Amino acid sequence: MNRVACAVLTILSFVVLNASAQQSMSGPATSSHNLMPVPASVQFQAGRLGVTDSLKIATTNFSDARLLSAIDRFEKRLQGRTGLTFTPGLATDAGTATLVIQCAGPGQSIPSLEEDESYQIDVSSQQAKLSAPTVVGAMRGLETLLQLLAADSEGYFLPLAKIQDQPRFRWRGLLIDIGRHYEPPEVLKRNLDAMAAVKLNVFHWHLTEDQGFRIESKKFPKLHQMGSDGLFYTQEQAKDIVEYARQRGIRVVPEFDIPGHSTSWLVGYPELGSGPGPYTIERRAGIFEPALDPTRDEVYKFLETFLGEMAAIFPDAYLHIGGDENQGKQWDRNPKIQAFMKEKGIKDNHALQAYFNQHLLKILEKLKKKMIGWDEILQPELPKNAVIHSWRGTAALADAAIKGYDGILSNGYYIDLSFPTSQHYAADPIPANTTLTAEQQKRILGGEATMWGEYVSPETIDSRIWPRTAAIAERLWSPASVTDVDDMYRRLAVISTQLEELGLTHERNVDVLLRRLTGGQDIRPLKLLASLVEPVKEYRRGEQRPSTMLSPLNGLVDAARPDSQNSRNFAKMVDALIGDAPRFQRSATDLRMTLTDWRDAEPALNSLLEKSPMLREAKPLSTNLGTLGTTGLEALSFLAQGVVPPNGWREAKLAMLDEAAKPKAALEFPVVSSMKKLVVAASEQSELKTMTASEWQKRVVALANGSAK
Amino acid sequence: MNRVACAVLTILSFVVLNASAQQSMSGPATSSHNLMPVPASVQFQAGRLGVTDSLKIATTNFSDARLLSAIDRFEKRLQGRTGLTFTPGLATDAGTATLVIQCAGPGQSIPSLEEDESYQIDVSSQQAKLSAPTVVGAMRGLETLLQLLAADSEGYFLPLAKIQDQPRFRWRGLLIDIGRHYEPPEVLKRNLDAMAAVKLNVFHWHLTEDQGFRIESKKFPKLHQMGSDGLFYTQEQAKDIVEYARQRGIRVVPEFDIPGHSTSWLVGYPELGSGPGPYTIERRAGIFEPALDPTRDEVYKFLETFLGEMAAIFPDAYLHIGGDENQGKQWDRNPKIQAFMKEKGIKDNHALQAYFNQHLLKILEKLKKKMIGWDEILQPELPKNAVIHSWRGTAALADAAIKGYDGILSNGYYIDLSFPTSQHYAADPIPANTTLTAEQQKRILGGEATMWGEYVSPETIDSRIWPRTAAIAERLWSPASVTDVDDMYRRLAVISTQLEELGLTHERNVDVLLRRLTGGQDIRPLKLLASLVEPVKEYRRGEQRPSTMLSPLNGLVDAARPDSQNSRNFAKMVDALIGDAPRFQRSATDLRMTLTDWRDAEPALNSLLEKSPMLREAKPLSTNLGTLGTTGLEALSFLAQGVVPPNGWREAKLAMLDEAAKPKAALEFPVVSSMKKLVVAASEQSELKTMTASEWQKRVVALANGSAK
Repeated sequence: MNRVACAVLTILSFVVLNASAQQSMSGPATSSHNLMPVPASVQFQAGRLGVTDSLKIATTNFSDARLLSAIDRFEKRLQGRTGLTFTPGLATDAGTATLVIQCAGPGQSIPSLEEDESYQIDVSSQQAKLSAPTVVGAMRGLETLLQLLAADSEGYFLPLAKIQDQPRFRWRGLLIDIGRHYEPPEVLKRNLDAMAAVKLNVFHWHLTEDQGFRIESKKFPKLHQMGSDGLFYTQEQAKDIVEYARQRGIRVVPEFDIPGHSTSWLVGYPELGSGPGPYTIERRAGIFEPALDPTRDEVYKFLETFLGEMAAIFPDAYLHIGGDENQGKQWDRNPKIQAFMKEKGIKDNHALQAYFNQHLLKILEKLKKKMIGWDEILQPELPKNAVIHSWRGTAALADAAIKGYDGILSNGYYIDLSFPTSQHYAADPIPANTTLTAEQQKRILGGEATMWGEYVSPETIDSRIWPRTAAIAERLWSPASVTDVDDMYRRLAVISTQLEELGLTHERNVDVLLRRLTGGQDIRPLKLLASLVEPVKEYRRGEQRPSTMLSPLNGLVDAARPDSQNSRNFAKMVDALIGDAPRFQRSATDLRMTLTDWRDAEPALNSLLEKSPMLREAKPLSTNLGTLGTTGLEALSFLAQGVVPPNGWREAKLAMLDEAAKPKAALEFPVVSSMKKLVVAASEQSELKTMTASEWQKRVVALANGSAK
Repeated sequence: MNRVACAVLTILSFVVLNASAQQSMSGPATSSHNLMPVPASVQFQAGRLGVTDSLKIATTNFSDARLLSAIDRFEKRLQGRTGLTFTPGLATDAGTATLVIQCAGPGQSIPSLEEDESYQIDVSSQQAKLSAPTVVGAMRGLETLLQLLAADSEGYFLPLAKIQDQPRFRWRGLLIDIGRHYEPPEVLKRNLDAMAAVKLNVFHWHLTEDQGFRIESKKFPKLHQMGSDGLFYTQEQAKDIVEYARQRGIRVVPEFDIPGHSTSWLVGYPELGSGPGPYTIERRAGIFEPALDPTRDEVYKFLETFLGEMAAIFPDAYLHIGGDENQGKQWDRNPKIQAFMKEKGIKDNHALQAYFNQHLLKILEKLKKKMIGWDEILQPELPKNAVIHSWRGTAALADAAIKGYDGILSNGYYIDLSFPTSQHYAADPIPANTTLTAEQQKRILGGEATMWGEYVSPETIDSRIWPRTAAIAERLWSPASVTDVDDMYRRLAVISTQLEELGLTHERNVDVLLRRLTGGQDIRPLKLLASLVEPVKEYRRGEQRPSTMLSPLNGLVDAARPDSQNSRNFAKMVDALIGDAPRFQRSATDLRMTLTDWRDAEPALNSLLEKSPMLREAKPLSTNLGTLGTTGLEALSFLAQGVVPPNGWREAKLAMLDEAAKPKAALEFPVVSSMKKLVVAASEQSELKTMTASEWQKRVVALANGSAK
């Protein structure tokens, strides 16, 4: 769903709960919930189970250290949300416990695709019951219970509910690229906590890149010593992360991206490369030439030893070998490689990479690992237990499924590209119009959000991942029928605040960056601006605002976040006003206040910018903000007075808005499209005499979008 | 300086720079600076040295890994503050470098009391020079350079300046008690960074308490296994912290508090205790009975082995043995101990503890460690190389100095007690009226801020330490003559924002706590309230709001911070208004807006509180805020109209203000005293006919303080 489509959604108060046929609402029950992902089936009833400081939890049947640790975290978070102090220790009598956890067994010893993550919850006014076949299922249920917590003037409580839940897809991942920018272990840990909170189950750890080799190798220490600027994970730290993830029922799939994306490997071991070397760590963003030499036995020996070392650290059944974006330019220029290809009858670089992958497969087979790689690894000889990771899209994924391959989707989930949540939410690994058979559909395992690391630091990465990834998690867990965008946004705001309890900085660090940018001046006008702009989409940041991996990530573009909530609110106000034609009253007051704030912010902003060289680049944005405010106020004034603007006004304003739509400092104003509607509405008032309000509204929207005269 | 005294300080625009006789200002120089601590001597000149992306640093004479690492951090922080990207690597030609660092040598191999921390800075329009006898001195100078950074519409620059600087005291510490509440290593690291930023040089690591034994012992694993709830530092983590501190020129002095404060030791090793046991980890705040048994050889053998193990982890020359607050109740009740005392002729518990310390001294001597302990360790037999750590005060410290002991002061620096910065700033280890000789004064080594851990979590601890501790750091580093409170507060606000770059959460986490308390509702009214209240002083929180070490630290009292800046601003506005008598114009508009906000916040707050059971306790505070607003507006209105209020008005309002001054939810309103001035001023208007404005102002203040009729 694109932004314009999103903007014209009429303002619905929250309605839909029934995510699937199984769901039903009964009695005078809770009219909305804050669950994300929405469970497969939820049924609320009137009544409540109080949450007080006498809360006690019991486990029946099975229990183990992992479950006990999960219960401990659950209690601490519940204390944090309620201010209550519970008595330590489990209840000895399940009959009198507030919450009984009935877990059938431990499940998989190492989190795996075969894990049963289902659970059931039954909250009665006496007791809440959580039952699950595995500890991981129980943990998923505990997260749902935390999201069920409600409050009113009488205190905290769980609403009475019956929930039956299991994921739609088995592979629900988040890729974090710490190659371009390193993130310390505590950043990963808080993100693992957040993943668990929204029921994601695969942490895809993108460990090597042209810009950094980030894992300690004891066999080949020059890899991390020379390829990382000292910013790497020790093996002990990596094992600690794997265990931390296991505790939360999350698999860790490591990626060693080869044969391309390998500059950082070659700094210490240039003899593995296909070019003459020497190599230095890449500092730019982009696609680069260095690639491993697929013609030499030493390279495979090296990889077998190295991957063997890594296999001992990462117990997951899968190992991601990347395989993407190798352009083969080094291969083309290397006479030995060319001679080798001729000798072996390898007709092109595509086939040469297939040859490389065949060797890799043998190594992985020895290590008892299954291969996963990007679309490029799909070759006729690829064994059927490999997984295709698609950046290309659902068509490529369906194609792989037809050929018998398992696959996961990342196209549509590139959270580094600054698209709105609604757009990711609309991407489905199995689109509604799929022509795959049921059997083939089973091969679509799920998907992964990808946090590519060109423009993220420990200070900003959380705000690029969250809260949007929670909506992707819902897409991958909840029934396909859960698609109400307005309700998703309503729940997302609640979840976003809850995620802060895990230490995430996606909300709190905005002000930190703004304070630094203003050097201690009053940040309020800048905060308003930052809340109304979004980083440019796709890969345009690099063009707009050149930088390297060594540049600080502390500009206004880093403080601003994707999917501006203020802009969405503004769009709704404008739509409400137009929807109120011909009276234009309902939202006029709020709109006027909002637009006045924008207009007045400009001089305050300009005085800030004067004193902060870092903010100089924001000058045109400040000007645009003022102009947007003034223009909107003019349009409102015409509408309120029922006066048609003079000739030329509309054209002048629309031209000005086209100008304001152009990104500056790698930032853009998503409100421009709504502002166009206001301008068009003001200048189209007289048409209301000849058409119904509804016809008129359609005309205004169409004209504003430029699709009608 | 108490709060009332602080409130009546007249509003001075910034003036004083000359901290000592050496300092001077020359030419049309920078009229103020943001340096904290203020250097021993600063001299500014007109002109600038531009800071651009071509900045290059050179080292001459000596360089080592520690200096290079400090330069790297300096460059990254400078990039963060400016948005510039420097080219990696040092300048090869010192002549063309922007900054030349001339370091004479490495200094002490392990940070120590003997370290020379002095440095000199000379910024000319061509180049900045930093020279220092040691790497630690150079690091101190780098922090000063970062604080010198200025900006205007032309860009970033260093003002031309000559600085000569060294500390007044050699021991400038911060104690963090992680016994009551554990803080993970990353919390300690960011606080070490902050300490270095304000030139503190001792991290006093309070590692054991009744409520937690927080360091791994391989010799006696039940210490941490049974005494810590699993929340302890591995030896590797401890070594990592020590090295992190060393990199920043900070000593780590570990404290193992014995013979009292030792409940957590006894959980795993009850045989060390003086009572019958068994023991459980203490969950309450307070002083408790468990104490080691000083009569048994096994206890000393245990301590020798344990402290030997610790001595290998902590290389500092000193080891803190606590020694405080042992009431000896377990000793009184233990017949074997009583018999032992009779046999040995030990007359009381005081003497018994001296006996214990004599044994400890022998152990420390074997381990080549000097003893430091709280006032209580001062016994006739104490060797002269021990250090007295005074919680009692400067008199006790002077007494020790006269007896020939080195000492450090913590009385006056108890940052856990929520006093305003000004009060800590006024505490001097060597008060101006000291009668100590110069020789005796040399024995006063410095002081330590103490962050006792009863009420701090990883989420809130930074806000209890910072920014106030920066002012204590200034007291301990800068010349004694640096005492301008207004200027301290001006600079403190700047430094507080700069400290955020190190990851500190003292500013950012306020909103996080408020968002959690409001469960996602609009936090603005609550933020206003939180900005106007302060946690109750001294040890009254526990009485007001009972809790244990297991209680969450997530209430309004945890979001509110000591030394409310908004309240200080209000006090200044009131003083300005009264100082403007008889016209009362200057600040009336701002005051009216402020008071209107308070009045209007009450209904908004009440609607928030309705939906958040955690906020219920704040209801009386909300009522008081509204009443304060209404009362102030009434007083303002009388003043503006020159109308004397009716009979009884003043008495009723003052009674109401006395009521509002009483703490609720462990929070109090420091603005009450200013509000009293407004009320008195309104009701004393007619007196202005018979006295000068200045006489009248004194009368108003005196009456408001209750010291005149």
